Amino acid sequence: MKEIDKMISGHLYKVSDGELVKHLSDAKDLCDEFNFTSRNDYDKRKAILIKLLHNFGDNILIESPFYCDYGFNITIGDNFYANHGLTILDGSKVKIENNVFIGPNVGIYTATHPISAKVRKMGYEYAKSISIGNDVWIGGGSIINPGVNIGNNVVIGSGSVVTKDIPSNVVAVGNPCKVIRNITNEDDSYWENLIQK
Amino acid sequence: MKEIDKMISGHLYKVSDGELVKHLSDAKDLCDEFNFTSRNDYDKRKAILIKLLHNFGDNILIESPFYCDYGFNITIGDNFYANHGLTILDGSKVKIENNVFIGPNVGIYTATHPISAKVRKMGYEYAKSISIGNDVWIGGGSIINPGVNIGNNVVIGSGSVVTKDIPSNVVAVGNPCKVIRNITNEDDSYWENLIQK
Amino acid sequence: MKEIDKMISGHLYKVSDGELVKHLSDAKDLCDEFNFTSRNDYDKRKAILIKLLHNFGDNILIESPFYCDYGFNITIGDNFYANHGLTILDGSKVKIENNVFIGPNVGIYTATHPISAKVRKMGYEYAKSISIGNDVWIGGGSIINPGVNIGNNVVIGSGSVVTKDIPSNVVAVGNPCKVIRNITNEDDSYWENLIQK
Repeated sequence: MKEIDKMISGHLYKVSDGELVKHLSDAKDLCDEFNFTSRNDYDKRKAILIKLLHNFGDNILIESPFYCDYGFNITIGDNFYANHGLTILDGSKVKIENNVFIGPNVGIYTATHPISAKVRKMGYEYAKSISIGNDVWIGGGSIINPGVNIGNNVVIGSGSVVTKDIPSNVVAVGNPCKVIRNITNEDDSYWENLIQK
Repeated sequence: MKEIDKMISGHLYKVSDGELVKHLSDAKDLCDEFNFTSRNDYDKRKAILIKLLHNFGDNILIESPFYCDYGFNITIGDNFYANHGLTILDGSKVKIENNVFIGPNVGIYTATHPISAKVRKMGYEYAKSISIGNDVWIGGGSIINPGVNIGNNVVIGSGSVVTKDIPSNVVAVGNPCKVIRNITNEDDSYWENLIQK
Repeated sequence: MKEIDKMISGHLYKVSDGELVKHLSDAKDLCDEFNFTSRNDYDKRKAILIKLLHNFGDNILIESPFYCDYGFNITIGDNFYANHGLTILDGSKVKIENNVFIGPNVGIYTATHPISAKVRKMGYEYAKSISIGNDVWIGGGSIINPGVNIGNNVVIGSGSVVTKDIPSNVVAVGNPCKVIRNITNEDDSYWENLIQK
C-alpha cells in the first residue's frame, strides 16, 4: 500500500513520503497563487480551483486567504461561500454538500497525530474524513475536528469546537460544541414573515 | 427601501443586490491594497483607510491582514491598535470609541443569517450593529457576535466568544464570555505602583 | 534600565520607546518578506529566519503567514513544524524545545496589558515568558496565554485557551484548557501496533 493510499484511507502514513511531499508542495503553491489573485479576477481564481480541488459545483466563492494541504481530497457542492481564512487540512476526504456558508477563520482539520510522541517522532500521521451536509452555516472562528460528520440543515455557532458528529436540523454551539435546540418549520415561518414585501 | 438601507438598519436584505456587491467588491480591493502595503508606509496606508472606513481618529495602527466587508459602516476613535488578522463584517454599524486595543485574530461580526435554511437559500441575510466603548482591551482570538455592545473600561480575555452585552468596568472571559470581576480604582493603584521610577 | 530590558524581564515598559519601535518595525518587515516568499524557496526563507529569530534547530518548517513582534526573543529546537497563521507576540522570551508540532492559527502571546486603563493610557505594557517542552503537539486554533509553561510530552486539543501551566505527559483541552488524561507507555504500545508492516 502506498503512503498516499494509507493517508486517504485513515491509516498511519509517513508524512515524509516523496509523493506526498510533492503533492503538498504543489497544492501550497496553488493556494499562494489563489491568494495573490484578486477575488474580482473570477476566471483566474476558478481556473486555480479547478487544478486544486477534486470537484466543486456552481456558484462557489472563497475569500482569501484560503489554505489546504492537498486539495484533491476536497469536494464542494453548489452555492458555497467561505469567508476569509478558511483552512482545510485534507489528508483525508472532505465532502461538503450544497448551500453551505462558512464564516471567517474556520478550520476543517482531517489531519491528526498519534497521542504517542514516540510514534510521532517516527514520522507517522493519520487523518479522518469530514462531511458537511446540505444547508449548513458554520459560524466564524469555528473548528471542525477530524472524523466529524455534520448533518443537513445545521447552524454551528461562532467560535465552536466541533469534536463529535452533529445530527441534522439543529443549532449547536460551544467548546466542545453541543446541540442547543432543534430547527423546525416554525423557524421557516418566523423568517419568511420578516421578509419585507 | 433599498437593499443597502435594509442592511444597515438590521432588516433582511438580498446579498446579491448589485449596489451591495459593488460596494463589497470595492472594499475587498482596498483591503488587499492595504494588506500588500508595508506597515511602515504609513501615509499610503492612511490614505487607503480614509477611502475605506467611515471615520477614524488620531493615532490609529492596524496590522495586516485586515479585512472588512464594506468599511463605510466602521467608525473608530483615537488611539486604536489592532493586531494581525482583525476581521470586521460590517453589514451594520461598528462603532469603536477611544483607546481600544485589539489582540491578534479577533473577529467583529455584525453579519448573521436566518436560522431558516429556506430563507437563507432565498438569498437573505441581515446584520446587527456592534459598539465597543472607551478604554477597552480585547484579547487575541476573541469573537464579538452580532448585536453585542461592550461598555467602557472593559477587558475581554483571549479566546472569548462574546454573545451578549458586556457592562462597563469589568473583566469578562470565556466561551460564552462571562464577567469574572469588576475593575476598580484599586486596579489603578496596583498598576501605578508597578511603574518603575 | 532601558525599556527593552524592562520588557524582556517582565516589567512595565513604554511601548513607544524609539529602540523598541525600530526593532518591532524591522521584525514586521522580515515577517512580510518571509510571508511573500514561497515555502518552496527554502534557502531564502531560512536566511530570513536566521535574521529574525534568536535561534532555531534543524528541520524547521513554518508555513506562512507567520507573525511575531521582535523575533529576538524566540528560540526553537529541532524538528519544528508550524502550520499556517502562527502568531507569536514575543515581548518576553518564548522557548520551544524539540519535536514540537503546531496546528493552524495558533497564538502564542507573551504580550499583555495592565488591567488599569489609566496605566494603559500612559503607554505601558508588559510581557510574561512562555515555554513549551519537548514532544508537544498543539492543536489548531489554540491560544497560549502570557506566562504559561507547557511540559514535555503534551497534547493540547484544538481550540484550547491555555491560561495556566500544563504538566508533562498529559492531554489537555478546552477553554480554559484543562488536563483530561495522562499519557503513558500504553499509548506508545497502542500506536506502535497500528503501524502497518
